[in-house]
Amino acid sequence: MSHNDILTAAGFTGQELSGGTLPVFSPIDGTEIARIMETPAADMPAIIAKSQEAFKAWRKVPAPRRGELVRLLGEELRTSKAELGALVTLEAGKITSEGLGEVQEMIDICDFAVGLSRQLYGLTIASERPGHKMTETWHPMGPCGIISAFNFPVAVWCWNTALALVCGDPVIWKPSEKTPLTAIASMKILARAIERFGSDAPEGLAQLVIGGAGLGEALVASKDVPIISATGSTRMGSIVGPKVQARWGRPILELGGNNAMIVAPSADLDMAVRAIVFSAVGTAGQRCTTLRRLIAHNSIREELVSRLTKAYASLPIGDPRQATTLIGPLIDQGSRERMLAQIGKAKAEGGKVHGGHIVTSNVPQGGAYVEPALVEMPEQTDTVREETFAPILYVLGYDTLEEAIGVQNGVPQGLSSCIFTLNVREAETFLSATGSDCGIANVNIGPSGAEIGGAFGGEKETGGGRESGSDAWKGYMRRQTSTVNYSSELPLAQGVKFDF
Amino acid sequence: MSHNDILTAAGFTGQELSGGTLPVFSPIDGTEIARIMETPAADMPAIIAKSQEAFKAWRKVPAPRRGELVRLLGEELRTSKAELGALVTLEAGKITSEGLGEVQEMIDICDFAVGLSRQLYGLTIASERPGHKMTETWHPMGPCGIISAFNFPVAVWCWNTALALVCGDPVIWKPSEKTPLTAIASMKILARAIERFGSDAPEGLAQLVIGGAGLGEALVASKDVPIISATGSTRMGSIVGPKVQARWGRPILELGGNNAMIVAPSADLDMAVRAIVFSAVGTAGQRCTTLRRLIAHNSIREELVSRLTKAYASLPIGDPRQATTLIGPLIDQGSRERMLAQIGKAKAEGGKVHGGHIVTSNVPQGGAYVEPALVEMPEQTDTVREETFAPILYVLGYDTLEEAIGVQNGVPQGLSSCIFTLNVREAETFLSATGSDCGIANVNIGPSGAEIGGAFGGEKETGGGRESGSDAWKGYMRRQTSTVNYSSELPLAQGVKFDF
Amino acid sequence: MSHNDILTAAGFTGQELSGGTLPVFSPIDGTEIARIMETPAADMPAIIAKSQEAFKAWRKVPAPRRGELVRLLGEELRTSKAELGALVTLEAGKITSEGLGEVQEMIDICDFAVGLSRQLYGLTIASERPGHKMTETWHPMGPCGIISAFNFPVAVWCWNTALALVCGDPVIWKPSEKTPLTAIASMKILARAIERFGSDAPEGLAQLVIGGAGLGEALVASKDVPIISATGSTRMGSIVGPKVQARWGRPILELGGNNAMIVAPSADLDMAVRAIVFSAVGTAGQRCTTLRRLIAHNSIREELVSRLTKAYASLPIGDPRQATTLIGPLIDQGSRERMLAQIGKAKAEGGKVHGGHIVTSNVPQGGAYVEPALVEMPEQTDTVREETFAPILYVLGYDTLEEAIGVQNGVPQGLSSCIFTLNVREAETFLSATGSDCGIANVNIGPSGAEIGGAFGGEKETGGGRESGSDAWKGYMRRQTSTVNYSSELPLAQGVKFDF
Amino acid sequence: MSHNDILTAAGFTGQELSGGTLPVFSPIDGTEIARIMETPAADMPAIIAKSQEAFKAWRKVPAPRRGELVRLLGEELRTSKAELGALVTLEAGKITSEGLGEVQEMIDICDFAVGLSRQLYGLTIASERPGHKMTETWHPMGPCGIISAFNFPVAVWCWNTALALVCGDPVIWKPSEKTPLTAIASMKILARAIERFGSDAPEGLAQLVIGGAGLGEALVASKDVPIISATGSTRMGSIVGPKVQARWGRPILELGGNNAMIVAPSADLDMAVRAIVFSAVGTAGQRCTTLRRLIAHNSIREELVSRLTKAYASLPIGDPRQATTLIGPLIDQGSRERMLAQIGKAKAEGGKVHGGHIVTSNVPQGGAYVEPALVEMPEQTDTVREETFAPILYVLGYDTLEEAIGVQNGVPQGLSSCIFTLNVREAETFLSATGSDCGIANVNIGPSGAEIGGAFGGEKETGGGRESGSDAWKGYMRRQTSTVNYSSELPLAQGVKFDF
Repeated sequence: MSHNDILTAAGFTGQELSGGTLPVFSPIDGTEIARIMETPAADMPAIIAKSQEAFKAWRKVPAPRRGELVRLLGEELRTSKAELGALVTLEAGKITSEGLGEVQEMIDICDFAVGLSRQLYGLTIASERPGHKMTETWHPMGPCGIISAFNFPVAVWCWNTALALVCGDPVIWKPSEKTPLTAIASMKILARAIERFGSDAPEGLAQLVIGGAGLGEALVASKDVPIISATGSTRMGSIVGPKVQARWGRPILELGGNNAMIVAPSADLDMAVRAIVFSAVGTAGQRCTTLRRLIAHNSIREELVSRLTKAYASLPIGDPRQATTLIGPLIDQGSRERMLAQIGKAKAEGGKVHGGHIVTSNVPQGGAYVEPALVEMPEQTDTVREETFAPILYVLGYDTLEEAIGVQNGVPQGLSSCIFTLNVREAETFLSATGSDCGIANVNIGPSGAEIGGAFGGEKETGGGRESGSDAWKGYMRRQTSTVNYSSELPLAQGVKFDF
Repeated sequence: MSHNDILTAAGFTGQELSGGTLPVFSPIDGTEIARIMETPAADMPAIIAKSQEAFKAWRKVPAPRRGELVRLLGEELRTSKAELGALVTLEAGKITSEGLGEVQEMIDICDFAVGLSRQLYGLTIASERPGHKMTETWHPMGPCGIISAFNFPVAVWCWNTALALVCGDPVIWKPSEKTPLTAIASMKILARAIERFGSDAPEGLAQLVIGGAGLGEALVASKDVPIISATGSTRMGSIVGPKVQARWGRPILELGGNNAMIVAPSADLDMAVRAIVFSAVGTAGQRCTTLRRLIAHNSIREELVSRLTKAYASLPIGDPRQATTLIGPLIDQGSRERMLAQIGKAKAEGGKVHGGHIVTSNVPQGGAYVEPALVEMPEQTDTVREETFAPILYVLGYDTLEEAIGVQNGVPQGLSSCIFTLNVREAETFLSATGSDCGIANVNIGPSGAEIGGAFGGEKETGGGRESGSDAWKGYMRRQTSTVNYSSELPLAQGVKFDF
Repeated sequence: MSHNDILTAAGFTGQELSGGTLPVFSPIDGTEIARIMETPAADMPAIIAKSQEAFKAWRKVPAPRRGELVRLLGEELRTSKAELGALVTLEAGKITSEGLGEVQEMIDICDFAVGLSRQLYGLTIASERPGHKMTETWHPMGPCGIISAFNFPVAVWCWNTALALVCGDPVIWKPSEKTPLTAIASMKILARAIERFGSDAPEGLAQLVIGGAGLGEALVASKDVPIISATGSTRMGSIVGPKVQARWGRPILELGGNNAMIVAPSADLDMAVRAIVFSAVGTAGQRCTTLRRLIAHNSIREELVSRLTKAYASLPIGDPRQATTLIGPLIDQGSRERMLAQIGKAKAEGGKVHGGHIVTSNVPQGGAYVEPALVEMPEQTDTVREETFAPILYVLGYDTLEEAIGVQNGVPQGLSSCIFTLNVREAETFLSATGSDCGIANVNIGPSGAEIGGAFGGEKETGGGRESGSDAWKGYMRRQTSTVNYSSELPLAQGVKFDF
Repeated sequence: MSHNDILTAAGFTGQELSGGTLPVFSPIDGTEIARIMETPAADMPAIIAKSQEAFKAWRKVPAPRRGELVRLLGEELRTSKAELGALVTLEAGKITSEGLGEVQEMIDICDFAVGLSRQLYGLTIASERPGHKMTETWHPMGPCGIISAFNFPVAVWCWNTALALVCGDPVIWKPSEKTPLTAIASMKILARAIERFGSDAPEGLAQLVIGGAGLGEALVASKDVPIISATGSTRMGSIVGPKVQARWGRPILELGGNNAMIVAPSADLDMAVRAIVFSAVGTAGQRCTTLRRLIAHNSIREELVSRLTKAYASLPIGDPRQATTLIGPLIDQGSRERMLAQIGKAKAEGGKVHGGHIVTSNVPQGGAYVEPALVEMPEQTDTVREETFAPILYVLGYDTLEEAIGVQNGVPQGLSSCIFTLNVREAETFLSATGSDCGIANVNIGPSGAEIGGAFGGEKETGGGRESGSDAWKGYMRRQTSTVNYSSELPLAQGVKFDF
């Protein structure tokens, strides 16, 4: 489909796509596909106030009823899956299957959140005092600001929104400046769900703000936005986190990853090769969970590199709209330059580079296409310890598992990690208290591609936030511990006496 | 018992109590009871490094075995309850029953933590892929810095330490400069438990640092202390929180409260009066959960004030070592001056003050004794919205429950709150999403005196941290989401296809 | 709509409705609406064997994928809500709103079960041994036999089926002989969902058997049907339970209720009257949670009876298909006779009866229409202690709450109960360990009409089973406790030594 | 120590040990060590009535306070560990280390239960109706009858009692007729704890009945004993279960096991051999979790048998009081005869027997000492499928894992199981939905020796009960689902309308 066809199918009118100040480019060929209106910074106080108003009403709507809105959102997403997936491809450059997979993730979290809406379990707790009852309840928290990145332009919003809505919190979304169209399209889909849902949904329940960092700063600074869920670079998070903390807000940070795979001697190498290739080059290496470091046992390292370079050479690079393409473009030229620069630095540190060249033939002109790079490193250098948002995979060797875990943990980030091994002891050691220090630790699957049922997020510079499954929903609510005395006595805890 | 007898019973030698640079005063009479050694700031890196070493060993000790150490600590605390309680009285000025109650709280949390040590439950989670299994596991996190305040000189440490130890984390404790002796005594008690426990406890598992803010700053700044649990003023928390966040640590903040009670027309006034008096003047108004605001329905406000002034007049003020005393001294003269200043400001705002005078007769000389103050306010002024760490209780009137809840929530702090009512609808509304915005919300008991089974902490400027019961232990661990693929296939989540 | 229109709308062909041996009557007018095929008892072994085969395949389908089938079932139920609701009215005699409500309950449980399908949480548990990990996992259990009653002809099946399918268990359904058509219609709806779901659903995943008690006995007796979920009379349960237990199966029993409401002096009587009327006469008194005993404080008892008799007199009795009707027919003449007989017995025991007459005018001829009866009793007699499946409400007086609770608990059944009071102490006492002994205990709402989010079921002769929400799903799975030793040591639990 | 010394140390007086009608023999040498009083069957109604009275008081004691009694029990058990352990050795014939291990298990469960006493968590649940709140609470259930077996004469009681007491339930204990002395000694220990605990413990909180099956039958038959926790043979359970079910009680059954180990080609054979020997011959093969079937991969089967026969030959058999002994006597001569008979049958089915002879030299005369038997079987015969309570280990071969799992599951019992393998795929398959069908499934540790943190029990003829850790405590409580309406509206669930 042409750019225009995709935009039309996603429901955009010409008017929406022009007349604004924010140019939007397709990474496929670098063409400007829209120039849209930006939210004036001056509007932010009113937007936040509207969200607070919405909160006052929404928190009173019973949670299962709130869940019904999310269920309708899931239905609408199912209906619009193809169109929204294609738009993700157009605006973020993802290959078709991944564009659709991202929408599927939105659908999955909606299903999950609907179930949650009849749970949101607190606790009843045994009290030490006769005639007393103790309870822990979870209540809505207030507006949730969502700051999302270009690489998951819609799924991250939906993770947060599905949970926040069910938990009783309105949302205000500031998407990446690079991907406003998928954001607008998602809001249209949500608007259809709200339309069907009816008047229980207050105005301002879910708002979108389009524009630059100033908008995000307004969210980050406002005491009236108690939750800030921010996905992006560690640099961004290092600014957002302390600011939100300083005004007593709650930051949920999903920042950089520098994800590794350990390949043990007993690994099923066929599986490992397939997992490595997908994890390292999928989404052109632009997932936060992209595999960036390969820690291979020295007994199989050479064979692995040889098989990988062969596999890499076979990967179809090009227009992500084509069904056969596996590697689409980087998001922009700046990304490509940073990739090349990092490869240069790695080379200077002793790295032996396979691939990593610019691709210009058989690809749409204007896009930032690259070969994925495999870089054999003599050791874990500074460059390896940095996250570069591009398909560079550093290869390191190891002799003992303890050493391999040390290398895996020896970076500032703590998002995702995995081991390929058929050995129980190695697998379990990797998952134990002395194993991987990441929020995600897998065995015999790659570091990327999490299911929504588990909590998603990581430690150290990854920011410590958790989203998606498990009890991540608690991050969107406030906890209340209550004791009700239904007796006519007034005993004190810990047996304290105070009689007058 | 004399000061010396108490110190001797607590196991102090003359040598320990002299020759240092930090003077310790008893609030009972302002005398200097010790001059102890301070930890040089220059030692902090080594102390933190030792804690990291201890972590490497301690995390490998099975949790139920770690629980055994905490069980022994509970036993030792039981044995030393009287002595440690008396020392709390001497150093913090608490009345005897409260000094003992504080130790009981330490004992309770030990019992609770022992049980936890065989739980620390993670989850197994249904995976969407055949031959895959998904798990969430909680692992030890690393050293936990504990910064505690004078008003609960030992219980807060024990809350944190019992959980941290069971969770696999060493601790480094910086107590208030005003209460180092109770800290030293607690460490001796722990040392006895460690001695019985044996060699599984690594050196440096629990360390104490004595001295000024510089020591706390070293903990706050260090990347090697991933958890900082800080109890104290909002001002302190506003500095600690962002700093810890900025270096990717996890702050657990328990800061100021400005706790209120709503007294409804249907309230059992006899019970309410008793609850108010204890909550407002217990610990001389120096609990973080002390009742500071009384929001009384206008139909019963006058009667309530009349009964309270009568009750206040009957309260025995004096030496906290005497069994009959209910109100001991403030921690120091500075506290008393701040109290008087606040009363002055309240008066200027239209407040009608009952009590609040300095007490000098029938009390030990040198201590900062005061009458508790009841201040009828025309409205919730700026002064009322501030937390003053002294026994001032502001009285406000209301007509509708909605209005009363608005007043209750109309302060920057969010720790504890309660309502006295016999009406189901009022009680439940107060506990609902549109009710109290505090971390603690009670019915027919005062705001202070939490049981250890519930999570303790509050929202807004109270800092958002949770300690003690429920799943507060998760604050001391890191979460790991794992997927193990035990099949020979490699499906991707969300049905993504990537075949090469 | 005419009988035929309803049957046609529900998708029945003439062929299906005739030629069989089981006559089906509409309680609306007693006409025979179908004569359908019965499942030969001789087929049961093959049916059970097919279910076991289906189990072998279905347990391997990942739970979230199993959830997708249930989601589709929910979609199909939404599409067919009006038609299935009307059929419930035709075959079970429920009024229109209740017929639709029953289908809504099916939809709700589907939504809930979809969320569950990504949870089914087990635990990871702290192990006392180094290098060991302990886990609790929930696995599919095997075929689940469902025996349901006429009064919830489809919802109970759906409660069980939605959970069982998500949990990995095939189902075999034996509905009441009085309501096979709604069962067949439900299976058609499920078949449409399975059709859309595709080949992951094995043949025999959900089977229906139509006929008499012999079919149920075959399920109850078979070792290959590990779970028997039976809803119906205590008499039935008293046979099923021990038989299932004797062959090591797991009975989930939902049997009789004798549900009471306590009305306290402080109760909001307007609300109480409305709650009583709905609870006592809704579904013509044929819910397992129907209100059967009213325990009114003597100070308000007369007023309450007076208001109730007035309200009863105003209730439109008649054809349940008419929008204005609130009381439809009893299921059959036998029911009406049992009702009249019980009223006679109550009268003989001193009861004063209001209403309870047969209704013949302005109602379809042939149906068993009755006025609901209010019977003031001098005390809780044997007749009161029995459950009569008809709209008889016994009224008893009380003076103290303790006495009222004693009366409430003084029956062999333990399903549902409630109190109407505005008093916190009374409400909480009723909910406490010394309060109601029922599985359901409400405050200020009637005993009937449970939400699906909570566990449904009761104690004593009600059978002890739990279905629907909370962790009722565990009843459909088997629990496995695992310890994995990934160390090279072999320590024994409890420190036992055994060295050879 | 001599028999008398052990009895005296355990606190028995001569008077207690004589004059009764129940002879007690030591399996060590068959001597009668006591002749004690039996509880007259006629006393059972009064005993049960007393338990019901105790229940009325105990359920009101706050759970954390109930936990304090269990904590004191744990303390007393620590104090009496050596004496009680020795008595277990004397009366049940366990070797010293196992006698002590059994007491340790009692201590462990006490610690665990103390923690539980501040939890007993119910749920708060999101309600679909505005102004409503939904809660699930767990309440005390009533008297718990405990029927225990000779092989864990005291631990099983303590598992049940620690949980039951914390849950608010009194207990009535009927121990095995073969081990009444350990029961009496345990009750004395508990009496000391109760003495220290004080008057909150009602009379009759924990009662002991000594005698034959009639006493158990009285418990099983009584409606006033809602919970029957019975440990013993499948035969016993097949009688108890249906009877308890028939009178609406709750059976918790821990019956026979026929526990297997699969040894895969990759297994660490050194570890496997050690695990097999302990699991198969520990407690002279008289644990319910004793290893009874060895399913060895044909590639290593012969080697394994060879190493095992060698190991078996080296095991010191004899007086269990001697520190070096690893195999003590069987409980009595009847047991030995049954063992020999089973070996005979196995031989007739083609079994090749190693060991299994009577031992008479170097052992105390009068005891039923035997060599443990290793029996290589051509296939899984009827004899193999039976549980024989003696040290017979049947060895079977296999070629594929699927086959091995089929053999493992191909018996009527479903208690414990394990696999020895270093292969991740085999290990996880064994633990998966298609793996072991037992309640316990381990990897690289034997089937016996469970930690108390996990739920203990099994499926199929093992009875389905769960005791000890996880949420087994729920088996001792009743669940209550409550909805509180604190609004002034009366909406119905599922949107049902009923306006009159």
